[in-house]
Amino acid sequence: MPFKAKIHAVTLGVADLERSLSFYRDGLGLPTDGITGTQYAGDETTPAGAVAMFNLDDGLILSLYPRAELAKDAGLDPTGATRPTMSIGHFVDSRAEVDRLLDLAGDAGATIHGEAHERPWGIYSGYFSDPDGHLWEVLHFEGVPDPEPARS
Amino acid sequence: MPFKAKIHAVTLGVADLERSLSFYRDGLGLPTDGITGTQYAGDETTPAGAVAMFNLDDGLILSLYPRAELAKDAGLDPTGATRPTMSIGHFVDSRAEVDRLLDLAGDAGATIHGEAHERPWGIYSGYFSDPDGHLWEVLHFEGVPDPEPARS
Repeated sequence: MPFKAKIHAVTLGVADLERSLSFYRDGLGLPTDGITGTQYAGDETTPAGAVAMFNLDDGLILSLYPRAELAKDAGLDPTGATRPTMSIGHFVDSRAEVDRLLDLAGDAGATIHGEAHERPWGIYSGYFSDPDGHLWEVLHFEGVPDPEPARS
Repeated sequence: MPFKAKIHAVTLGVADLERSLSFYRDGLGLPTDGITGTQYAGDETTPAGAVAMFNLDDGLILSLYPRAELAKDAGLDPTGATRPTMSIGHFVDSRAEVDRLLDLAGDAGATIHGEAHERPWGIYSGYFSDPDGHLWEVLHFEGVPDPEPARS
């Protein structure tokens, strides 16, 4: 079984979360609950949880997330020019499926960034980069309802 | 009227179209007709049309497009590190709406990359960058059926 033909989230790495929230919410008029996840403070190696999410049509989520935190979350260097600028989120319905798809991506030639692991905000995920360095996160929501039930 | 809460396309800038097509089609298993648009050869300033598109669930299009051609299409330097790595596509139902949303984005603080204009493959579009340099293309299909009819 390959990847489902679906992208569930697009995360843009930003320098200033408030500035970018204002641009997308007040400037472009996209709907959002504002910045959430501020209870997860993070530190030099653990990513902070603060994020701004926009629920778009057809269930797609546009997220704004500080670029340094995105790098930490992906197990990449949070400083310097090699930090990722964005990631594509692909949601699956179990931890095993996260692990399986990361293996599949690796077999296809992707660069796998460390082991998949659990985040305090209820996500088990791992990242890979495509041949040009575009970052994908394969993730499973835990402790909150699955946003897309398994297909039979 | 602000932007509709929708992203219609995600374009990834690639170094080698065949390599990336193979990764996404053969490696990840995503559905595609392969490389299309090869009849548009382009030149040093006009972007070539060759692209690989994946029709994902819910109508979202994932496109692979050479990074230098993406830069040319957006009116940006096709050489060097400042070339864009990706763009987000937002489809609208008229040229006037392309122009209006580019003005709206500019008023919101986006950087507008030149005037919207027509492409030989039947697209009228213009690009802007958000405060972090993430590239958006606002586009209208012409000469082919509109992929999303206007809402009443």
